[in-house]
Amino acid sequence: MQHRGQEGAGIVSNDHGKLNGTRGLGLLSEVFKDERQLSHLTGNAAIGHVRYATAGSGSVDNIQPFLFNFYDGDFALAHNGNLTNAKSLRKELEQSGAIFHSNSDTEILMHLIRRSTKATLCERMKEALNTVKGGFAYLMLTEKSMVAALDPNGFRPLSIGQMVNGAYVVASETCALEVVGAKFIQDVQPGEMITIADGGLTIESFTSKTQPAICSMEYIYFARPDSNIAGINVHSARKKMGKILAQEAPVEADMVVGVPNSSLSAASGYAEQSNIPYEMGLVKNQYIARTFIQPTQELREQGVRMKLSAVRGVVEGKRVIMVDDSIVRGTTSRRIVSLLKDAGAKEVHVRIASPPLKYPCFYGIDIQTRRELIAANHSIDEIKSLIGADSLSFLSEDGLIDAIGLNFDAPYSGLCMAYFNGDYPTPLYDYEKQYQATLEEKVSFV
Amino acid sequence: MQHRGQEGAGIVSNDHGKLNGTRGLGLLSEVFKDERQLSHLTGNAAIGHVRYATAGSGSVDNIQPFLFNFYDGDFALAHNGNLTNAKSLRKELEQSGAIFHSNSDTEILMHLIRRSTKATLCERMKEALNTVKGGFAYLMLTEKSMVAALDPNGFRPLSIGQMVNGAYVVASETCALEVVGAKFIQDVQPGEMITIADGGLTIESFTSKTQPAICSMEYIYFARPDSNIAGINVHSARKKMGKILAQEAPVEADMVVGVPNSSLSAASGYAEQSNIPYEMGLVKNQYIARTFIQPTQELREQGVRMKLSAVRGVVEGKRVIMVDDSIVRGTTSRRIVSLLKDAGAKEVHVRIASPPLKYPCFYGIDIQTRRELIAANHSIDEIKSLIGADSLSFLSEDGLIDAIGLNFDAPYSGLCMAYFNGDYPTPLYDYEKQYQATLEEKVSFV
Amino acid sequence: MQHRGQEGAGIVSNDHGKLNGTRGLGLLSEVFKDERQLSHLTGNAAIGHVRYATAGSGSVDNIQPFLFNFYDGDFALAHNGNLTNAKSLRKELEQSGAIFHSNSDTEILMHLIRRSTKATLCERMKEALNTVKGGFAYLMLTEKSMVAALDPNGFRPLSIGQMVNGAYVVASETCALEVVGAKFIQDVQPGEMITIADGGLTIESFTSKTQPAICSMEYIYFARPDSNIAGINVHSARKKMGKILAQEAPVEADMVVGVPNSSLSAASGYAEQSNIPYEMGLVKNQYIARTFIQPTQELREQGVRMKLSAVRGVVEGKRVIMVDDSIVRGTTSRRIVSLLKDAGAKEVHVRIASPPLKYPCFYGIDIQTRRELIAANHSIDEIKSLIGADSLSFLSEDGLIDAIGLNFDAPYSGLCMAYFNGDYPTPLYDYEKQYQATLEEKVSFV
Amino acid sequence: MQHRGQEGAGIVSNDHGKLNGTRGLGLLSEVFKDERQLSHLTGNAAIGHVRYATAGSGSVDNIQPFLFNFYDGDFALAHNGNLTNAKSLRKELEQSGAIFHSNSDTEILMHLIRRSTKATLCERMKEALNTVKGGFAYLMLTEKSMVAALDPNGFRPLSIGQMVNGAYVVASETCALEVVGAKFIQDVQPGEMITIADGGLTIESFTSKTQPAICSMEYIYFARPDSNIAGINVHSARKKMGKILAQEAPVEADMVVGVPNSSLSAASGYAEQSNIPYEMGLVKNQYIARTFIQPTQELREQGVRMKLSAVRGVVEGKRVIMVDDSIVRGTTSRRIVSLLKDAGAKEVHVRIASPPLKYPCFYGIDIQTRRELIAANHSIDEIKSLIGADSLSFLSEDGLIDAIGLNFDAPYSGLCMAYFNGDYPTPLYDYEKQYQATLEEKVSFV
Repeated sequence: MQHRGQEGAGIVSNDHGKLNGTRGLGLLSEVFKDERQLSHLTGNAAIGHVRYATAGSGSVDNIQPFLFNFYDGDFALAHNGNLTNAKSLRKELEQSGAIFHSNSDTEILMHLIRRSTKATLCERMKEALNTVKGGFAYLMLTEKSMVAALDPNGFRPLSIGQMVNGAYVVASETCALEVVGAKFIQDVQPGEMITIADGGLTIESFTSKTQPAICSMEYIYFARPDSNIAGINVHSARKKMGKILAQEAPVEADMVVGVPNSSLSAASGYAEQSNIPYEMGLVKNQYIARTFIQPTQELREQGVRMKLSAVRGVVEGKRVIMVDDSIVRGTTSRRIVSLLKDAGAKEVHVRIASPPLKYPCFYGIDIQTRRELIAANHSIDEIKSLIGADSLSFLSEDGLIDAIGLNFDAPYSGLCMAYFNGDYPTPLYDYEKQYQATLEEKVSFV
Repeated sequence: MQHRGQEGAGIVSNDHGKLNGTRGLGLLSEVFKDERQLSHLTGNAAIGHVRYATAGSGSVDNIQPFLFNFYDGDFALAHNGNLTNAKSLRKELEQSGAIFHSNSDTEILMHLIRRSTKATLCERMKEALNTVKGGFAYLMLTEKSMVAALDPNGFRPLSIGQMVNGAYVVASETCALEVVGAKFIQDVQPGEMITIADGGLTIESFTSKTQPAICSMEYIYFARPDSNIAGINVHSARKKMGKILAQEAPVEADMVVGVPNSSLSAASGYAEQSNIPYEMGLVKNQYIARTFIQPTQELREQGVRMKLSAVRGVVEGKRVIMVDDSIVRGTTSRRIVSLLKDAGAKEVHVRIASPPLKYPCFYGIDIQTRRELIAANHSIDEIKSLIGADSLSFLSEDGLIDAIGLNFDAPYSGLCMAYFNGDYPTPLYDYEKQYQATLEEKVSFV
Repeated sequence: MQHRGQEGAGIVSNDHGKLNGTRGLGLLSEVFKDERQLSHLTGNAAIGHVRYATAGSGSVDNIQPFLFNFYDGDFALAHNGNLTNAKSLRKELEQSGAIFHSNSDTEILMHLIRRSTKATLCERMKEALNTVKGGFAYLMLTEKSMVAALDPNGFRPLSIGQMVNGAYVVASETCALEVVGAKFIQDVQPGEMITIADGGLTIESFTSKTQPAICSMEYIYFARPDSNIAGINVHSARKKMGKILAQEAPVEADMVVGVPNSSLSAASGYAEQSNIPYEMGLVKNQYIARTFIQPTQELREQGVRMKLSAVRGVVEGKRVIMVDDSIVRGTTSRRIVSLLKDAGAKEVHVRIASPPLKYPCFYGIDIQTRRELIAANHSIDEIKSLIGADSLSFLSEDGLIDAIGLNFDAPYSGLCMAYFNGDYPTPLYDYEKQYQATLEEKVSFV
Repeated sequence: MQHRGQEGAGIVSNDHGKLNGTRGLGLLSEVFKDERQLSHLTGNAAIGHVRYATAGSGSVDNIQPFLFNFYDGDFALAHNGNLTNAKSLRKELEQSGAIFHSNSDTEILMHLIRRSTKATLCERMKEALNTVKGGFAYLMLTEKSMVAALDPNGFRPLSIGQMVNGAYVVASETCALEVVGAKFIQDVQPGEMITIADGGLTIESFTSKTQPAICSMEYIYFARPDSNIAGINVHSARKKMGKILAQEAPVEADMVVGVPNSSLSAASGYAEQSNIPYEMGLVKNQYIARTFIQPTQELREQGVRMKLSAVRGVVEGKRVIMVDDSIVRGTTSRRIVSLLKDAGAKEVHVRIASPPLKYPCFYGIDIQTRRELIAANHSIDEIKSLIGADSLSFLSEDGLIDAIGLNFDAPYSGLCMAYFNGDYPTPLYDYEKQYQATLEEKVSFV
């Protein structure tokens, strides 16, 4: 699932109790470009990871899974998410003698487990899982078992599947189950720890204080359209976002154009609902990887230039509705509007299939300050002018919740809507101060 | 234009009469991954090339542009296409003392130019261009000029644009002009040689015996949808292929699904014409490059497995019309049909937006024998069974010609239709024997 | 000082309290082949290390210096030597929650320092240095100081120099001081910890229980001839070994030939004492690195074949005294004798400028079992036959002690002679069992 | 024989008439670092080459052997030496249509062979060998034979050996025969072309106008001491140079120190003759490759700093005779004198075991202008001051000729002495003008 992280990748396998690993910086195709990088990863169990940096530097030391060799056995650990009390836990641990070898959050859990005085490994894990806070989906590999655990809010998706031969597969997204031919069994629930050992699956809760708050960005942008999260197909949810958006913000035009690839579902929904033809007015250069998860602003900006082309033969002289999934800094939108106009579009009406992003995320999406969010600093009308659109509308918060259609007995039907309204489902711990500071600053994107 | 070749790439620049070059195997991002590979390519003129192997081995010696240092000046040369009399020309040249350093066709032109006894470089080039036969679009860079030339049938597209500052740009496809911000000026016509020197553009014909026969595969598969070829937008042509296909081969179904990415235009045309909803039933893994131009059958087969996923949430229990642009060996189609059925599709009706491929190409598309063409060896009904489809139809030859809509006073309105009907617009020279042999063999794909 | 280790190398620099490091597998020329690997190592203090594996695997995780980032400051650590209680210390530490990231001994000291409850960093270091046992020379870099420490026996050399500008330099061998233009100040004494901070040098003892036992292999083989250890020049000591050997084991011959490069000093001493001409009968291929420190037996054997050539024009028809520094497995000697005989030498008399190696080293030389020592398993006469020599003699233990000429009030004048007589100057701790086992096994090298 | 060239290397093998090759920039260990680079070089005949640049740039296109694929068979070619009429031949060839792909001299022979109108390949080769002028030793590999040819003066060494199984081996130096276990058969004589085919060896002369003029630099510096050239052992010749030098230029001193490694033979000769002890006062860092054959002056200067160390313990307070093989620019000598004095040497008397280098070489040693030769621009007394020596003497020309002891009926007994006296054994052709110009310029090295 390369789309979930491009900075680095690794695999650790368990060959009769001996764990072997490979990891490296870059894409999977780079890390595993050589037979030799894969050929020693033998055995009957393995965990893998792709790194999408939220915290920690770009060193190979931060690439997961982390592999530990203890006198009493090997242990490997991978983590998707972001802890909110990592900094203070790390300081406490170091003060009592712990030594960290990465600056990733992930290592903390290992120290907590090793320092726990509980009697069994299982109890030590549970104690550790109750100590870390924030968004996390962990995968652990021991000599005898594989363990997966999800935070009490279930911010990140985590699903279990099963192969025809009975083997279990755990993955962040169900699309991975399809690719390897595994049948979907069930999602890991918030606060659950599942253990696969001796060919069987055990499900336990490490806490009873749970409340679903699934990351809405997974539906909007992050996950693959062929995945289901909490039983909802991502493509269908996006198409529905487009449909509701068409109802909420109609406009007269000659065609609907989606920004490839993540907005194509929403755009086709908008077209279907509005009865305006869907056209391929933007073409993506398939040889350049996607914008959002590249590390620096400069790289991101360079990326867009080559990545998309407007199709003059399609848009010239036409009124275009351009549908995109979200606006972060606004730079990409400005460029695409300008591409379309340069190619002769008469009008460009921008429709965003999600509400305005105004607040940082502390649970695993890399938006950690309001400074980089145009909607946190400008009104919709100002944004319209900044990106050069003829009109601009966003999906409403209620529209988003309806489109996804979760049904949990929890705020926002079980979605995390903090990016849009600042209503964080947990205390922010170490980030509280940083968050308060960010609320007060205002940046002009002009 | 990485999509036109992935085997290797190079650039030669002209810095005040001194030509400097870089070339290497692999993608552009690999060849030019380092600042240093680009930083010495200074100057005010340059030619570049991506290699798509039709003839010649995978050695770096075959990567173009070729750069020659003569006592009387530097010269660089790049070639898109395939010569039909390369083998005999090479033998003749070697017999009179010529030494070749690659096994690419391209070098031949250089020998012909250097051995010509004509008075001027321009005349020597014309003589050489009249000696080579087949499909060719050449780019040449000398100390004082850039020269582009197109074969008498104009098999390959070649367009001229101009930057705001007056600089000329020549490219195989117009999409490249858009990306660099150049305005389209005109296409190079069959048999033309254009020279850019001293800031001006000169157009000459090196032969008067011309007859347009534009490669129909460029419209069907090869070119980018945002390019125009002979004034026809490729996306629009493909959409029209889909529409005519829907008229020629309708079927009752719940949704139209295109095989991403090259068939999306045709699929949306089919959907629009048939009034059956267009859905995203197949998702492409954007991190894996496209099938057709990978070198070996084995690599191609491995590639497909990871590259596409059927979206269970969309196709489960549904009757699906799967639209693809073409069928070569049939293996890809069989896999996709099977993906869709595994994901729960009730019926899969395959509609191909081009006629059956039955004959090899000798002008630059890498299909050199009928052995690898399922439609050269099996009836449509047999193919339907082999790929596991519930029904199968191809676009008719007339449908294809209508969809593209060229208007030349030439056979097939100026298209090369040889892949479908064996009607080659030129003698086959060195390939004649091989072609006759391939007509007689029959291979079973069962 | 690449000759002290070829497996890997690293440097950590201190730039105003921020430590930056680079490390990698391979030779220095490989690890630092690129400007970029060096350019970020700015600052006014730095420590470096080359890895010669005695314990720990060939992973980059074991390459030093180790760099640690703590909430209260960065810390870097490099280690030359081998601990005898590493295994039990590590187990104890892990049992109380410590996590190790390498399987090198070196990390242990860091854990001990961080877990010490002493008040100051200096006291914590001393406590840690008193806990580890065996042979060690440590270099530590903190935000404000550089610290060097030597084990209570001073097995490994460690010297302090000073640049013209007052800067201090600490190095395993004095040859490094010469290369950078530093003046030799003094050797670090057994049990000393020296601290360089605020431009000044402080010397303390962390223990009073010291007894010099300098590794005799440093004089015989390991150190560079231009270094002085404990005030004794290595080349001069080797020349003296050759002279005493000539007295102890004379033989009639036409020439003395040294095995290049480490035996040239001893050979010239033998020649000078015996008045037999010194000739270049063996030539070393300078493009192949030296045998002893390559990792596997197989690589070692392949290495010898290409590495040395006998000079037919010199040795043909002659009686040759071949002087070598030591015999480990005997394979090298057998090959060289055979090279000389193949090149026409009439007789080959082997003279070894050190006593027979019979016991493993646990303090930092990679001979950890008697199985690999021919002299632990065969008599001198048997060895003579095995290597095909016409006669064979070793230097006596007393001869070695005399040749080096140390003057400490300690057994063997302050040398460690354990390789020859099994008289280890310290308890063997974790190695005791392994050592007892090795005493009982006997292997035939026939 | 890596010592003969470090810029690049290659091998071409003949597998049943199909030639396969690998070549690359850098040391042999870099070019062939991977099993894969060697594993396809199968077959029963092969030629290899290491590049030492005299003419042509540092591009991989210039790395040999060159491999050509002709319609009538493959051909590979490697060249040691330098042609004096390369430039004019190349121009002539290009004017008649030839295309060159490297800027190395070597390719010229191939064009001449291919363009020859003689009836047989053998005759065509002979014609070509009579057309090129200067210094050359060629190795050619065809589908059915291996051919070696030596210029009419025999500037470069070239020897034939035979394996136990009857296979023939041709190599520039006899040391290579020893390493592979081949028995020396005979040297290739000036003007000879030898052909190995069908398991047999044929010797022919391509010209009768021959006159031996063996490069004296081969004896002085270039060749390995364990090689024999024209029956003379190189080490023995060097030792003799040292002995004669001691007779010609005695001086009172405490020790003789050779500059490692190429001057050790001469130094030991000087010591033996003068009865002054030979000591190891300079130590070479074996991990840094030798000076002379690195490409740029800057690299050469950097190299020396780390490469040699003076041994303070040996030279301190002593009068030292420093023996070196030659002085080119004087920078190395100045550094070594300064190293010795910094290490405490009281006096440093420099003795050079060859006459002063005053004239460029056009036959294959990379000294192409007098600007870089200190002895072409300064008197011996000036050089003494420039390098900081207490005294300086060179071997006389007669002394050199005597030391080597050739016995040919030719000027200087068959040696080329042009570097010392400008007496070139052939016309200089294309270099004549450049040579005349260099005679007139005078550069100060102060």
